[in-house]
Amino acid sequence: MLELVDLDRNLSKEAYKPLSDELQLRLGACQRAARAAGVPVIVVFEGWDAAGKGSLINALTQPLDPRGFKVRTISPATETERFYPWMWRFHTTLPGNGEVTIYDSSWYGRVLAERVDKTLPRREWRQAYEEIEEFERQLTNAGYVIVKFWLHIDKKEQRRRFKRLEADSSTAWKVGPDEWRHHRQYKRWVPAVEEMLERSSTAHAPWTIVEATHSRYARVKVYETVTQAIEKELERRKLHPAPTLSPMPEPTDEGHTQSNVLQRVDLSLSLERDEYEQELKALQERLYQLEHELYTARIPAVIAYEGWDAAGKGGNIRRLTQGLDPRGYEVVPIAAPTPEEKAHQFLWRFWRAMPKAGHITIFDRTWYGRVLVERVEGFCSEDDWRRSYREINEFERQLAQYGAVIVKFWLHIDQAEQLRRFEARKVDSYKQWKITDEDWRNRAKWRKYEVAVSDMLQQTSTTYAPWTILEANNKLYGRIKALKTVSKALEEGLARAARR
Amino acid sequence: MLELVDLDRNLSKEAYKPLSDELQLRLGACQRAARAAGVPVIVVFEGWDAAGKGSLINALTQPLDPRGFKVRTISPATETERFYPWMWRFHTTLPGNGEVTIYDSSWYGRVLAERVDKTLPRREWRQAYEEIEEFERQLTNAGYVIVKFWLHIDKKEQRRRFKRLEADSSTAWKVGPDEWRHHRQYKRWVPAVEEMLERSSTAHAPWTIVEATHSRYARVKVYETVTQAIEKELERRKLHPAPTLSPMPEPTDEGHTQSNVLQRVDLSLSLERDEYEQELKALQERLYQLEHELYTARIPAVIAYEGWDAAGKGGNIRRLTQGLDPRGYEVVPIAAPTPEEKAHQFLWRFWRAMPKAGHITIFDRTWYGRVLVERVEGFCSEDDWRRSYREINEFERQLAQYGAVIVKFWLHIDQAEQLRRFEARKVDSYKQWKITDEDWRNRAKWRKYEVAVSDMLQQTSTTYAPWTILEANNKLYGRIKALKTVSKALEEGLARAARR
Repeated sequence: MLELVDLDRNLSKEAYKPLSDELQLRLGACQRAARAAGVPVIVVFEGWDAAGKGSLINALTQPLDPRGFKVRTISPATETERFYPWMWRFHTTLPGNGEVTIYDSSWYGRVLAERVDKTLPRREWRQAYEEIEEFERQLTNAGYVIVKFWLHIDKKEQRRRFKRLEADSSTAWKVGPDEWRHHRQYKRWVPAVEEMLERSSTAHAPWTIVEATHSRYARVKVYETVTQAIEKELERRKLHPAPTLSPMPEPTDEGHTQSNVLQRVDLSLSLERDEYEQELKALQERLYQLEHELYTARIPAVIAYEGWDAAGKGGNIRRLTQGLDPRGYEVVPIAAPTPEEKAHQFLWRFWRAMPKAGHITIFDRTWYGRVLVERVEGFCSEDDWRRSYREINEFERQLAQYGAVIVKFWLHIDQAEQLRRFEARKVDSYKQWKITDEDWRNRAKWRKYEVAVSDMLQQTSTTYAPWTILEANNKLYGRIKALKTVSKALEEGLARAARR
Repeated sequence: MLELVDLDRNLSKEAYKPLSDELQLRLGACQRAARAAGVPVIVVFEGWDAAGKGSLINALTQPLDPRGFKVRTISPATETERFYPWMWRFHTTLPGNGEVTIYDSSWYGRVLAERVDKTLPRREWRQAYEEIEEFERQLTNAGYVIVKFWLHIDKKEQRRRFKRLEADSSTAWKVGPDEWRHHRQYKRWVPAVEEMLERSSTAHAPWTIVEATHSRYARVKVYETVTQAIEKELERRKLHPAPTLSPMPEPTDEGHTQSNVLQRVDLSLSLERDEYEQELKALQERLYQLEHELYTARIPAVIAYEGWDAAGKGGNIRRLTQGLDPRGYEVVPIAAPTPEEKAHQFLWRFWRAMPKAGHITIFDRTWYGRVLVERVEGFCSEDDWRRSYREINEFERQLAQYGAVIVKFWLHIDQAEQLRRFEARKVDSYKQWKITDEDWRNRAKWRKYEVAVSDMLQQTSTTYAPWTILEANNKLYGRIKALKTVSKALEEGLARAARR
């Protein structure tokens, strides 16, 4: 593939000037249109050392409104970043709607330098391709434009450039032993680069090879490619405007019965106070030990709570955390997204809240809001929530592959029990704050939620991140079951890590 | 001081139970009230090793709604954190309105462990006291509640606890050589602790010494102190409701003339195109070199742009960045604060945007919005903007002490020139997006802004962060002066660093 690239392509000075001026204006106009339309843009620069990444990035940024873009230089992961899955640092720093981020090197470092330099086992870079595919697909499905450039020069040209850089004292620092080593290994890199270009050139995020021997030619190609990609997305949005959103229709009796796994839950399960107190104490002591073992083994744990209003999430979480060292865990409440969060793909804020290795994060409501409240209320389109089952499964699999323990709870009560609790809250002065009009409104949508919850449980129960239904009509039973489930999951996670 | 502490204070089991139950309810209610009223709360735990910080923090969090608090454990600064002023990590992770953050160790580590272990030169921990005072004063002035606990036990008790911890295999990891070393140095720590308690006990952020020998007594004291501090702030807010905000009154002719340093600016200064092109090229090349030297010397630089609408900020910034390597700088545009930013002290978002060592951040509008638009429009109270001159000076001094280069530009044009540019923008299709109704409205407030700008220049021109007025009726002149100013400031910053 790379052999066929015609590296001599060039533009005359005379042809370049007017062409480039016009392209700059078009690109600038394009960026403003993208800002106005809320299109997020990602531009990736990869390429041979000394292929001219820096000056091409600079040329690209010139026509842009400096308020609209960021350049991110990707260096080897820092100490902090190594406490998270390797894609975490990319997930958490994505541009939002209307923003441009230009990457000087990128997530592809994983399958290039780390692969060729053999700092990464084979299994891991193979897996990296999978995670890159998921990452780029999820983003483009959410409306991101992704443009990826491979700057190509041949080995002879690279050598010539290294020599020239070395000869000038103000640029000599750019060429060190690493660069010369890579140069000597040029041939070993070629198959890795070719595999990367082949495997990760998708319709939604294609690679563009830039013949970089002649900088004028390269600039024009970069301008044109970025402009066209943005224009294409703007055009697409014009032709396919966002669908009007509508709430979930009331399920038919048949649909409701078919799609209701919750019917099978045995809500009569209960526990006596005495037995509860005893078990609670033992489990809390055990969890305290496990928290420390987790810390030592550097395993992160994610505990997700979903459930009906008044099902007892708060009290359940409190029993879980009561025995823990507060330095090892965090409770993250999930409310409606902020404007900044809304301007990103829906999983963005959850990536940002992930625990670092050795820590526990407990989510009071979660990313499942996408297929629960957002689906029921019609806050996102049908395409969006339907697609998100897969996206959530991929998200959780990436966490699990990193070694995270994932526990997901659905706190289940029946309608009669919910009513009892709502009524009780109305009269208890210490609990009045817990009950709002919103709760009564949600209660009226019980049947819709039953369908949404059932679909969720069926679509997102995986071996690596299974759901546990907590029978919570009896609060004591639900709490003990939660603590037992967490404790077992942590033990298994520790055992898995020990086997690695 | 510490010698006088009565370490035998205790509570009988019988007295503790009902007392503690009632205190828990009160604290829980208090936290909800603080959330509702938007009061941010900071609780600091410092104390001797094995004084029981972990279990006291856990006890404190029990009655709290887990959705409302965070526990931050402060370890030695990470690699990333060391690329910023030492208080940066505290500034950037503060609780917002209505949130509680509990610190397990804190900024006081600087004047305790780092001081006693002598990892810090004397000058630096002395300076740390100053920065801590500023930090806590700025926060409490913005409505934060700060509660600081020193957990006190004597040397004998500490030894007893170490032995007990070591005897139990599940807690033995808590006592290592460092802890024993600190134990042997107990007497050396005492004066450092006493100095800390004395110097940093202020009316707005007092220390509370907790006699921690008996845990029941300690718990009650912690509950009570936190509850009272929050109640006091809630009470204060009831008695002194936020003042009604009002825009700046039209200045009298006399006030306007007296307080208008802008009158003296010579706007006839200009530059010919030829000379401009030549100077521009040389300066851009020089800046490219300086950017690299800055990177190598790990010096951060902050370049702040303020100016009239249409004064040419964008074009000026573009000439500055044109020659730079985009990997070394970032342009940060400042718009109206987001809800999250509004829920923090006004400098919070600027701390978060500071460059890391070796990088340049260019602000397109800045923290001076506080004394410009917020003052003129009445978005904050008179107390707020009056106080902020000092707060801004402190903020910039802290950056400068860390070694940052600070350049601040006021781009100045006159009213006639602004009108010419507004009119020109209306007819140029490529520039129409640059002119909005807002610009015309601001133009009508010219005289008010003249007073606000003059006050700002007078109050915040310091030796470490001086203002430079750019005469920008002639754009070329303004650009060259900006580039010269930046280049000179960077050179001086490098020279200062070399002398250190």
